[in-house]
Amino acid sequence: MATSDRTFTVFGAGLAGSLMAIYLARAGHRVHLYERRPDPRTASAERGRSINLALSTRGIDALERIGLAEEVLASAIPMPGRMIHSPSGELTFQQYARDGKQAINSVSRAGLNEILISAADREENVEIHFDARCTGVDFDSGEASVLDGASGQTRSVPTNHIIGADGAFSGVRSSMQRRDRFSYSQDYLTHGYKELTIPAGEGGSFAIEKQALHIWPRGTYMMIALPNADGSFTCTLFWPFEGPNSFAELRTEADILSFFKAHFADAVPLIPNLVDDFQNNPTSSLATVRCAPWNVGDRAVLIGDAAHAIVPFYGQGMNASFEDVVWLDRALREHPDDIALAFDSYASARKPHADAIADLALRNFIEMRDLAGRRSFRTWKKIDQAAGRFFPESYIPLYDMVSFSTIPYADAVEREKRQIAFLKRLGIGIVVAIVLVIVASVFFWAFNR
Amino acid sequence: MATSDRTFTVFGAGLAGSLMAIYLARAGHRVHLYERRPDPRTASAERGRSINLALSTRGIDALERIGLAEEVLASAIPMPGRMIHSPSGELTFQQYARDGKQAINSVSRAGLNEILISAADREENVEIHFDARCTGVDFDSGEASVLDGASGQTRSVPTNHIIGADGAFSGVRSSMQRRDRFSYSQDYLTHGYKELTIPAGEGGSFAIEKQALHIWPRGTYMMIALPNADGSFTCTLFWPFEGPNSFAELRTEADILSFFKAHFADAVPLIPNLVDDFQNNPTSSLATVRCAPWNVGDRAVLIGDAAHAIVPFYGQGMNASFEDVVWLDRALREHPDDIALAFDSYASARKPHADAIADLALRNFIEMRDLAGRRSFRTWKKIDQAAGRFFPESYIPLYDMVSFSTIPYADAVEREKRQIAFLKRLGIGIVVAIVLVIVASVFFWAFNR
Repeated sequence: MATSDRTFTVFGAGLAGSLMAIYLARAGHRVHLYERRPDPRTASAERGRSINLALSTRGIDALERIGLAEEVLASAIPMPGRMIHSPSGELTFQQYARDGKQAINSVSRAGLNEILISAADREENVEIHFDARCTGVDFDSGEASVLDGASGQTRSVPTNHIIGADGAFSGVRSSMQRRDRFSYSQDYLTHGYKELTIPAGEGGSFAIEKQALHIWPRGTYMMIALPNADGSFTCTLFWPFEGPNSFAELRTEADILSFFKAHFADAVPLIPNLVDDFQNNPTSSLATVRCAPWNVGDRAVLIGDAAHAIVPFYGQGMNASFEDVVWLDRALREHPDDIALAFDSYASARKPHADAIADLALRNFIEMRDLAGRRSFRTWKKIDQAAGRFFPESYIPLYDMVSFSTIPYADAVEREKRQIAFLKRLGIGIVVAIVLVIVASVFFWAFNR
Repeated sequence: MATSDRTFTVFGAGLAGSLMAIYLARAGHRVHLYERRPDPRTASAERGRSINLALSTRGIDALERIGLAEEVLASAIPMPGRMIHSPSGELTFQQYARDGKQAINSVSRAGLNEILISAADREENVEIHFDARCTGVDFDSGEASVLDGASGQTRSVPTNHIIGADGAFSGVRSSMQRRDRFSYSQDYLTHGYKELTIPAGEGGSFAIEKQALHIWPRGTYMMIALPNADGSFTCTLFWPFEGPNSFAELRTEADILSFFKAHFADAVPLIPNLVDDFQNNPTSSLATVRCAPWNVGDRAVLIGDAAHAIVPFYGQGMNASFEDVVWLDRALREHPDDIALAFDSYASARKPHADAIADLALRNFIEMRDLAGRRSFRTWKKIDQAAGRFFPESYIPLYDMVSFSTIPYADAVEREKRQIAFLKRLGIGIVVAIVLVIVASVFFWAFNR
């Protein structure tokens, strides 16, 4: 039963919202959880969202705290590294972690969401309302407008404290945006993405290496593929929307096939429905959303994509959102009698880290599509990981900090700058030492000849 | 009579919109001009907008092209420089132009708007609808939603080509924002502003130097004052909203007076209603709005604050908006049979310059509130302007390019970078020349002694 007299209204039962509802219930609060879609456990999946996601340490940590990590990881496929596909079809494996063992995990978005919604549903204090979308909030009165998907009617719902977990196109945030001094940005990439499928082989076998995130880096664009539990892979082509080499230009079967044969030759035989998938699957856009402040007093606060939609190239969107839940839960426990202070302190503490992972994700697009295919970059990765093994306490490669630790993102970025400076000094030191040894040897030889 | 068979719908009869309507009518088009406020020629002025504005070369050029510059400048007050008020009340005059003659001009926003609306009204092809606000546009059908201020009813208005000149909170833009891949940002300063009045002296005399923009630079904040034609000055205090030294902290009469006496001592006796103005005038926020793309095919295009709201510190908001009108008019004349191409080419050509002046305006806040009061900065300004006089063709100080030319903003920024590099080389050259002369003199002396 509820041990607090507070009621929270969570808008959005996606990954962040349903996890938040569980945390709030466990803290003794009453929770109303509203979701614009029908119950995913009975309805069919929506098109146009990514099919699988990379779950790493931050996300696992958030799941462990409520005892769900084991269930989620049971059907996950660990990916300890990238498999780089060169234009000629040559394969190179790059391990992710300095120890070569830690892995990010390919999980099904739909499967994970169902696990979380079922877990929220099991909480006595959580009441879930499906087919109910928040279209706006009156922050003075606390009245939220909720659109019923079945009837098309909008009703007014009284609230005390709102958690806006309603995604990149958040209705809660759109009402915040109408307030004075709400800073906001949405920046679209000129690239879009399209999903294609590599089906499972006979008996659910994997057509390419199962335990890897596959990348076909092609400089200004790329394709990636993540394994699914059923033996299939979901490929995602990241490509410009418009221009000479773009989605807009590639229409006919002949064009599509000749493009793929020229640039992704080894993938073509693996994607039997290539032309059909390409022509019929949607081309989706990629945006970074930033805003501030994330809360309106004790009335509402944003988490997940509603607060900070990021591009997918560091595989951290879900992980960052899950970490939001942990941080907001902690702030609420630290300030149980002052929700405004809890929201304020969560929002101001968390915002710099959301900005940091947004920047890292944008930067990683370049790394994945271009650098990953270069020899110089692979050499750098080897030095970076070797330094991490040689100085296990003081040098942690950035990728390890982001994916295999819970060091806050902005702290990881700062720490990496110091590590790079350290490596440079180390390099200079080694050169000086070598010169000194040579000079000393020459003197020694000169004296003793 | 209309010589084109096209009808344009301009939303917003502020400065940019009413000027645009005149340009379109002169080009032979039919124009419907909608304005959310009542007719300013009969209604009283709105509070909370700045009272006067600095009109400079770009704005004058746009007015000259339709024969309105003379009428506007008749009541304008030229300001050939800044008058810096030090904390001790010491005055220093800094000329704006390298020649010391060119001036920016203080004009009344309301007066200028009335001149423009009257001029638009005189055009046979312009029909003006007051009290009619655009709340959104359906870009597929061309139907615009227009809210009638008197009845509170929203009606649907059919349109062909829309010019969104409806300001920083544009209804046209809000509909664009709901489209996929519309990049958008609104960034608020942590400073707000409040207006105060220095009334005219006896017989309409000016209490402080008439022909100057007055600045009280105080490092992290400042006050400025611009002259009005009636002998008064409108002061604007730019100050943080919150924190230890902020609008939020200054409430009581004693606090207000002691703050002003400590920091703006020479202004206090000039502002008789200081406490009353401070307590009752609104504190307004300052935002930079950027977006892209500015148009939806041939259906709608943005100009002025709707496309690029900027902070006021370079005095270029109105001037940039007027220049938009000139550029859009030129694009429409260049592509009379392809409005989509005209809108596209205006939008893509103009956007980098809007971004450039937005950045310059932010940067100038630092210059005005902090640098302007420093001796090192004044020395730099003297060198900058002297270089501009010595190399009149090849070196134009940035301020002169922005305020006293129609060189596109981004080109001015690029050119300034080259000029600074040139000055550095010149400085090195002079030092080398001096050293050579000294060396030669020493040799000459050594040989001939």
